[in-house]
Amino acid sequence: MAVGDVKWPQMHPVDGVRLGATAANIKYQDRNDVVLISVEEGSAVSAVFTQNAFCAAPVILGREHVAHGGVRYLIVNSGNANACTGERGLRDANQVCQAVADLGGALSRQVLPFSTGVIGEFLPSDKIIAALPDAQSALGLDGWQAAARAIMTTDTVPKGASQQFEYDAEQITVTGIAKGAGMIRPDMATMLAFVATDAVVSQTVLDHLVKRAADRSFNRISVDGDTSTNDACVLIASGQAGLPMITAAAGDLYEKLELAVTNVMQALAQSIIRDAEGATKFVTVEVRGGASAKECLRVAYSIAHSPLVKTAMFAADANWGRIVCAIGNARVSNLEIAKVKMWLDDVLVVDGGARASSYEESLGASVVAKPEFTIRVDLARGAFEEVVWTSDLSHEYVNINAEYRT
Amino acid sequence: MAVGDVKWPQMHPVDGVRLGATAANIKYQDRNDVVLISVEEGSAVSAVFTQNAFCAAPVILGREHVAHGGVRYLIVNSGNANACTGERGLRDANQVCQAVADLGGALSRQVLPFSTGVIGEFLPSDKIIAALPDAQSALGLDGWQAAARAIMTTDTVPKGASQQFEYDAEQITVTGIAKGAGMIRPDMATMLAFVATDAVVSQTVLDHLVKRAADRSFNRISVDGDTSTNDACVLIASGQAGLPMITAAAGDLYEKLELAVTNVMQALAQSIIRDAEGATKFVTVEVRGGASAKECLRVAYSIAHSPLVKTAMFAADANWGRIVCAIGNARVSNLEIAKVKMWLDDVLVVDGGARASSYEESLGASVVAKPEFTIRVDLARGAFEEVVWTSDLSHEYVNINAEYRT
Repeated sequence: MAVGDVKWPQMHPVDGVRLGATAANIKYQDRNDVVLISVEEGSAVSAVFTQNAFCAAPVILGREHVAHGGVRYLIVNSGNANACTGERGLRDANQVCQAVADLGGALSRQVLPFSTGVIGEFLPSDKIIAALPDAQSALGLDGWQAAARAIMTTDTVPKGASQQFEYDAEQITVTGIAKGAGMIRPDMATMLAFVATDAVVSQTVLDHLVKRAADRSFNRISVDGDTSTNDACVLIASGQAGLPMITAAAGDLYEKLELAVTNVMQALAQSIIRDAEGATKFVTVEVRGGASAKECLRVAYSIAHSPLVKTAMFAADANWGRIVCAIGNARVSNLEIAKVKMWLDDVLVVDGGARASSYEESLGASVVAKPEFTIRVDLARGAFEEVVWTSDLSHEYVNINAEYRT
Repeated sequence: MAVGDVKWPQMHPVDGVRLGATAANIKYQDRNDVVLISVEEGSAVSAVFTQNAFCAAPVILGREHVAHGGVRYLIVNSGNANACTGERGLRDANQVCQAVADLGGALSRQVLPFSTGVIGEFLPSDKIIAALPDAQSALGLDGWQAAARAIMTTDTVPKGASQQFEYDAEQITVTGIAKGAGMIRPDMATMLAFVATDAVVSQTVLDHLVKRAADRSFNRISVDGDTSTNDACVLIASGQAGLPMITAAAGDLYEKLELAVTNVMQALAQSIIRDAEGATKFVTVEVRGGASAKECLRVAYSIAHSPLVKTAMFAADANWGRIVCAIGNARVSNLEIAKVKMWLDDVLVVDGGARASSYEESLGASVVAKPEFTIRVDLARGAFEEVVWTSDLSHEYVNINAEYRT
């Protein structure tokens, strides 16, 4: 059961980007598991991929292909991650790309492959290839929801987000989908996100934008601290809007676009946390007053990754000693603990290295009883601040992750 | 229930080190919770303390006192950690030290204080002080087991280890106790270890030795990746053995002593893992073939800390995809995954970046079904190797840690 607001939003189509989903019976029965996305010629496409050294075959290939430019198709399958499959995995992914290219009149390197599902099993590329004509005929501007459903693995809800803004009397759209039921279940890899805009953006600016927005969204969530072999986030700029090309990461239009893309990616990232495996809480961790962004993040992740904090959140236990301990474990050099403050929502809990004199257990308890709340920390040594989103650690998490692979 | 062999061992007394336990009713009823340890005049005492920035009052004071030298007493209590207690916590710890000093005819700074238990509550120093005469009259060379029991918090078994070796027809003893039921339950802090030898060791060499041995024992275990506000490991050299003083960290005698101290500390550290909260598995993680010790450790901890690996171990699921994913997450730069090998005990699982051709699921399953096994990784890029010990992540872990503080 996802936490909080996870209803499917209104999705604005993006001119130049069409999506088609179909069933290839890779692993699941009676549902779609293959998505083809076509992008208009002349679009710019940028992507960021997992940092995991054991990246999957589609990631290796995708990195190469996106660097060439001129991307025309994305092909996505669920049910099989094509990860830890060695040389054969690369051949399989290549075969799928070639088949898409043949069908769409493009080159193999104009196709980006994505896979999510079981690790260590060979990709049934023949099944995917056989399903391609169906996917092609299903292509449409309104294919976002069907696509969001087809890329699900352990997700309990499809994940989408969409925004529009005006510039020079022109309406600009940013729309995206994602999958990922928590970070991460690496045998059921992984986090995938596909976001598109009709804005006209140069490749250089788009490369900058996707990194920047992913960094403030998908790189700010934590369920269990792991990243998987297949994580990828793609940003497509179809260039169909009647506006000049954005050629610098500055100026009013760029800033509006960056805000919209970041908002869409944050909404998608948060929906992944809301749907995290076994999650019963959606917890925002805000750290301010840092001497650098890095140390703010280190403290925020130390809290967000701590199994002791996460089990306390599951128990709705305002166990501030564990949060303080996690702050202390972040290895921020020369941290003056007498200056550190910590709040649960607006309730001051820790002040002067000890429990705040105004704090009573019942105040904290009423905050952590809610399904959504914020842990706020002030390090009182600088002007930097960062935020991350996380979930709790529940019995259901152990249940889901301790199940035998089936 | 602790995993594997946790029976109380034969404990050889250490001349010059006497221990006395008594009940001060700090938190627990009907059990001892205060331990006094007296060390002969002229002993050398060294200690390593938690790196947590929110270290507890006794840690702050203990660091100061041990630096002065001339330590004559250690005073330990369970039930209250005196952590996150601000200025008052320091006054309370000081008061206890002063009372021990008054009783024993020593200076306050010749007393090291240790506390373990609930965080954020003030230390009932009056109760401890009132119990001191009892503890003093209980002092004896054979007090190790009673002391090991008195310092327990969530531990299910007392933890002790003892070794002797011969040098120049003289018998040298190394004996120690520890507490810690898993790393760590910071509201029930923490890991404490007290190890003593009758060897004659200079302060400089002892300072070196305690760091080195702790680094290869207590710093090589992981339950949930957290370190607490009160962790401490003390090494006492009473100097009562009829041997020359060890004044350099080299030579046959030093090496024999280092081996014995390391063995005792490793046995204690492993007994902490065997008694980890909710543990059903004792898992050794060996990483070899690293270009540096640091990268071996990074890989080992990435495996040992991964909740996904740990839940799979709990389920006795030979889920090698999660182990591979954890290796890939260790951020070892330029790791060639095609060269990496991974075994479960002696079963080759991963080879050439994919499942080994000889591997069958049943082979891995029979390894992880055992209560104790080893995950072995060869990075194939150097001559360094490291080992860490860890436990699994069970329902019982969530139960224990999600309970309300009581």
